[in-house]
Parts: sequence; C-alpha cells; structure tokens
Amino acid sequence: MRPRVVILGAGFAGLNAAKALKGAEDDITIIDRRNFHLFQPLLYQVAMAALNPSDIAYPIRSVFRNQKNVRKVLLGVVTDVDLEQRLVTVGDETVPYDFLIVATGATHSYFGHDEWEPIAPGLKTVEDALTMRAHVLSAFERADSDPEDADRLLTFVVVGAGPTGVELAGALVEIAVHAMGREFHDVDPTRARVVLVEGADRVLPPYVPSLSASARRQLEELGVDVLTNSLVSEIDERGVTLASGERIEAATVLWAAGVQASPVGSMVGEVDRAGRVRVEPDLSTPGRPEVFVVGDLAAVEGVPGVAPAAMQMGRHVGRMLKSGERKPFRYRDKGSLATIGRARAVADIKGFRFGGFLAWLAWLAIHIFYLIGFRNRVLVLIGWAWHYLTFRRGARIITGVPRNNPSSRPPEPG
Amino acid sequence: MRPRVVILGAGFAGLNAAKALKGAEDDITIIDRRNFHLFQPLLYQVAMAALNPSDIAYPIRSVFRNQKNVRKVLLGVVTDVDLEQRLVTVGDETVPYDFLIVATGATHSYFGHDEWEPIAPGLKTVEDALTMRAHVLSAFERADSDPEDADRLLTFVVVGAGPTGVELAGALVEIAVHAMGREFHDVDPTRARVVLVEGADRVLPPYVPSLSASARRQLEELGVDVLTNSLVSEIDERGVTLASGERIEAATVLWAAGVQASPVGSMVGEVDRAGRVRVEPDLSTPGRPEVFVVGDLAAVEGVPGVAPAAMQMGRHVGRMLKSGERKPFRYRDKGSLATIGRARAVADIKGFRFGGFLAWLAWLAIHIFYLIGFRNRVLVLIGWAWHYLTFRRGARIITGVPRNNPSSRPPEPG
Repeated sequence: MRPRVVILGAGFAGLNAAKALKGAEDDITIIDRRNFHLFQPLLYQVAMAALNPSDIAYPIRSVFRNQKNVRKVLLGVVTDVDLEQRLVTVGDETVPYDFLIVATGATHSYFGHDEWEPIAPGLKTVEDALTMRAHVLSAFERADSDPEDADRLLTFVVVGAGPTGVELAGALVEIAVHAMGREFHDVDPTRARVVLVEGADRVLPPYVPSLSASARRQLEELGVDVLTNSLVSEIDERGVTLASGERIEAATVLWAAGVQASPVGSMVGEVDRAGRVRVEPDLSTPGRPEVFVVGDLAAVEGVPGVAPAAMQMGRHVGRMLKSGERKPFRYRDKGSLATIGRARAVADIKGFRFGGFLAWLAWLAIHIFYLIGFRNRVLVLIGWAWHYLTFRRGARIITGVPRNNPSSRPPEPG
Repeated sequence: MRPRVVILGAGFAGLNAAKALKGAEDDITIIDRRNFHLFQPLLYQVAMAALNPSDIAYPIRSVFRNQKNVRKVLLGVVTDVDLEQRLVTVGDETVPYDFLIVATGATHSYFGHDEWEPIAPGLKTVEDALTMRAHVLSAFERADSDPEDADRLLTFVVVGAGPTGVELAGALVEIAVHAMGREFHDVDPTRARVVLVEGADRVLPPYVPSLSASARRQLEELGVDVLTNSLVSEIDERGVTLASGERIEAATVLWAAGVQASPVGSMVGEVDRAGRVRVEPDLSTPGRPEVFVVGDLAAVEGVPGVAPAAMQMGRHVGRMLKSGERKPFRYRDKGSLATIGRARAVADIKGFRFGGFLAWLAWLAIHIFYLIGFRNRVLVLIGWAWHYLTFRRGARIITGVPRNNPSSRPPEPG
C-alpha cells in the first residue's frame, strides 16, 4: 500500500509540503477548515479596501488539480489526533496516516483580554479583514452624519507595530487623505488621526534598529502618531487607555499584536508558552519520527514566523518524505521587507538595508511573484496599477453578515 | 434657499434621478442603507462564484464625486416619513425636504413562509449572494466527504423560473460540470442534478411563449430538470415537497420567486397587494405633487420591474425637477434579455426574437455597457474572458460571517 500522508492546514507550510511531494509514491490528504489557500501577506490590503478576498485566495482543489497524488481535500476542524493509532479526527470522520504534517499555524492573541476582540478586530482570516474594512469605512460615514463626534470617529488606533501594524497605519492615512478626501462635504476626512501603539521601544522590533528608525521616520512623514514603549491597559467602545494613563478617544481600534499558536499543537507534542511545538532538527516531533510540525506552529530557534520560513519548512519535509532521507532543516534568510504605504517601505536583504521607494518596489515585485496562480497575479497587478494611478480603493464596499452561512461551521454530513 | 431634494435609495432609479439633476439648482441628499450602488442584474454571478461583490458594487460617494449638488450621502434605514412636515426620519436624524424621490425598491417574498428563508436563500443583497455561494460550494465539499449522501448533496433546487431562476439554474450546471468536474476524486460532481421549479405553465412567464419555449429547450440541453405548473408546498433542511406530493431530496434550495416592495412605500402612499405605491402619470403620489415614487416600488400599468424601467423612471423625475415641467412618464421597452449560461440566452428586442449564442452576445454587450464606472467594466471584462477561456470560477471561495460588523446595523452616532 502507498504511504498515506495527511497534511493539516493549507497555508504556506502545508501547501509547500504537498507540492514538494509531487510525483512521490504517496497518497496525500489535505485537511483545512477553509476551501482556499490565503495569501496572508496581502490580507491587510483586503482590510484596507484595496483588494477583494478572492484576489488573494485560491481554492485548494484548484492548486492541486494537476497533482494526482493529492487524493483528498477535506474541509473541517481537527478535534483530535491519536498518535498511537495514527488517526486524525475531523468532525465525525477519522483519517488514518502513516506520516502526519501539522501546519495549522497561529492566530492573533489578545493577551488574556478576549473581551477586546469584538471591539478591536484582528487580522488573520478573510472575515477578519472584511470586519476591519467595515469598521474603518463605517467610521468615515458615521463622522459625516455626526460632525460633533467627528474627532473620535476619525481617530484610528492600531495596536502593535510589527509588519502588519505598520502596514495598516500607513494604509489608513492613505484612505483618509486620498480615497475619502474629495467625497465628503460636511466632514474633512483628511483630519483623521492615526495612532500606532507599540509596547517595545521601536517599531518593527524584529528588524535591525536602523530600519526601525527609517520606518518610524516614514510613518511620521505620512502623519502617523507613533507611540512606542506604550502598553494598552484597556479598550472599550469609546477608545483606548494606555498603561501610562493616557486616554485616546477613538471609534476604531485595530489589533495587530500577539501571536497564539493553533490548538492542534498540543495534540501532537510538547508546546512552549506561545503554544508552538518543540521539534527535532528535521522538524519531526521527539519520539514520533512520522509526525512533523512546520510553519508558524513549529518552535525552531532562529526561525521567524514569516511566510518564507513556513514555505521552506513545508518544502523541507515534503522533500525528505519523497527521498526517504532525513536531514536537519536549515533556514535561509532571504531578507525582510515591510511596506508602509504606497512607495514607502524598508528592506533588509542579506545585510543590504534600504528604505523608501526602492524598498517598496522590491516589496511589490516579490509579493506579485509569489502570488500563486496566473489569474491572481494579473488581476492583482491591474488592481494595484489602477489604485496607484487614481488613488482610489477598488473594493470600498461595506458588506455585512451572510445569513445561515454553512461555512461558519465545519462541513458536516447531512 | 435652494430646493432640497431627498432621494431614498441608490439603486437604478434613485441613482438616475440624482444624475439627471446634475447642474440643477437643488441640494440633493441621497439616503441608502448601504454605501454602494449595486449592479443587481449581475448579482447572480457573485452568487455563482464568477464575480466579486466589488466588481458590481460602486461607492455612492464615488459616483457623485464630481456632481457638486449632491450635498450629502447618508447611510441609514428610513423609519418614518412625515408628509405634512416634509421630514424623513433616519435613525435619530430628521432630514427636511422640498421634493422627495422614493426609490427603495423591492425584495423577494416567501409568500408568507418566512421560515423558508434560512433554508432557501434568496438573491437581493451582496450578503444574500455570498450566502448562496457558500451553500452551493459547501454542498460539493460535503458530498466529497460523505459519498453515501452524495445524491442529496448534489441536488440543487431553484424555485422560480423568472430571469434570476433561469440564470441560476444554468450557472449551477456550469459549476458542476466545468468548474468542479476535474477537481474531485471520490465523488463525481458532473452527476449533480439541477431542478428548476415554476408555478406557471412555462419558464420566463413575462416573455412571449416562443422565447419561453426556446429558454426551456436550452435549459434542458444543459441538463436542467424543468418542472412547470409546480408549486412548492414545503421546504425543509432535507429537501422540497411540491403541491403534487412529489418529494425532491436536496441539500441546496435557492429562492428566485416572489417580489415584496419596500416598507417605505406604505409611509408615502396607498399600496397595492405587492406593496407597490399607486402613482399619478408623472410618477408623483396622488395629492402630494412633491413626492415621487420610482423604480420597482412604483405601480405603473404596463411597466415591468426591471432595471431599464427603473432607470427611465428615475431619469424622468430628475429631468422634470430640473426643468420644472411636469410630463407623464412613458416607458420605452428596449427589449428583454435573459441569459441561461455561457453562450445561451433569449432576446426579444423590438419584436425581433432570437435565442442562443447571438442573444448571449447581446446580453453580454449590454451588461458590460451599463456597468457603471471604468474600473468595473474593465475588470468584469477580464474576469469574464478568463472564465470563458478556462471554464473556471474566479471567486470560488467560501467565506463566512464577519464578526461584530458595524454595517449590519444602521450607522449610529457614537
């Protein structure tokens, strides 16, 4: 019988593991709670009304339509892993495996303040992005109906100055100044205030200090208020209170802080404080050479939780299984890039550090290159070109809640 | 003081009324519950995963960014109209008017069976379309996980064979055969059964019988089961029961029947059984020459509830207000077109009746022409061309429920 490889999660890690197994003598099953792979690095552009969800999402089945050994794509949530019997439970189905690749990733964490989630939406799923988009666009509309409360309605607080927070803050300024600026009569959207709050002493803490300084300068040139060394102590419907006691009245708070690994991690191994699974050098779990953990869920010294690392880990395990030869994983750092808005970014590519327009071009080229699927690449390019030429937002529509949506629960028989 | 014109609804009728007032000495306020105009005739393409919501939606503010006399765009739901004081209530705001144009349209009706709505989604809003999309795509995914129940999971019932029902039935066959066909292993999507149920004795009842016959033939060539003279007596989670007693086991039921006018109608005039307002020949309400009703909400003898009629009515009232001269409304019937799937349609243009590919080309050209806004036209063209060349669906992603979405309630101050 052909070895059965079960892959949990079709993010960058899981997808690349499956792709690396192309042509191998295995039967592959991919299990994900969604029917699509999401190009996460551009999700903030969906939240900021520049792209549509399907511009950056691609059906898993379509990705593998020409890869015969991907035998099954199963939609559902993993509720149990039986390491002894080698069985994964998904709803009322059990799926046996010979090799298990766990790539269920991470989501944002509210540091024990889950009550903040409805007020301060985060950015991990397509629904998160649409929720964020509706919050932001509605704030401008509400300001136009209620000029007396316009100061609060036009204040946007972004919590967390990692790459996502920096991207969101830059995009918010662009929306206020360029997209909305000329379309309101009773309120001036350009007076919108964007506040970026970060607990560490600089923005983009994982980067070298010179790039953090460049990013901060670029943000401030755009008009973003950057508050470092600032922890949030309270978030409510009317604004944010900092640990210093400072109060920011704001109708919109966006959450870009904290990482919490998927709960599947603790089903397959020993986890660290962030919920990530400790792995052997070859990315298998200790004592279970048939179980691998890849991507954001894996705790590997010196490997950041970024898309290129996830892709490399997935590919590594796929290749090992195909060749039958175990090797330690080695992360190749191809550099870091963070964008701050149109024509602004910072880059650190093999020690060559630069900011501004050139960094932004590099960012643009790399993201377009990596977008999987011909269609996505072309449409995203057109959307961007249009956006760039006209300063408009292509997807500036506020949409709400589909009723009785079967995708909000795991698919179930009957 | 400049006359204050308040327009309720930014559909085809309201939008065209405002456009016809361009350059007039009026202050125009547009009130809608959504921030965008929706190109309703292509909404079924969003439901069928071929287009994105923002491909066919355009922000109201952007439509009027260069029309100075559109002074205000207000998001909200109209809760009261005071005809004596000439005031419209929207949330806790009251808006005074000198002229009122009511264009709040119609939605689908479940004929007193509102309990069917969660099981059999209709198609009026973007959320409806995404709900329908998720139902349909999830049915295929569930069939793949549960082969024993696959017959029921792959049966799709469309209730109502008007233009929307015919379009949905044709598109469902295409999805099953072309989009899904090659991407499933354990289940054969091409065995999907599409049943179109209609109470009248033919499909497309408003059309001439020869075109109804042509449409039926084209539907049957595609493989659709067409049941005419068939009323639905019960819908539940497992299928549909017809008045004849026939039972169809089906996991997906789509609702394309019934029309119910907006409740704003009864706030401004006398309504007929369908909730539409009786109007004078110039589209004003009896005894209230300053109040007009246009579009699907107006009951005008011989004028169908279609987009061209709504556009003409809106334009008529706008022009009358601009010129100050009252004239009876005359509907110019430019013909009827209904599409049945790729390269299939029926057309009735000034008595010239034809079906098949030529009718489809006419349908395509007219819909692209009318799509407002440069961006929409180009992107829709590209999306379509891609779809046509590859038989794929560009927007085949199942999305769920954004959390705590402020757009799901009318915007409120604070």
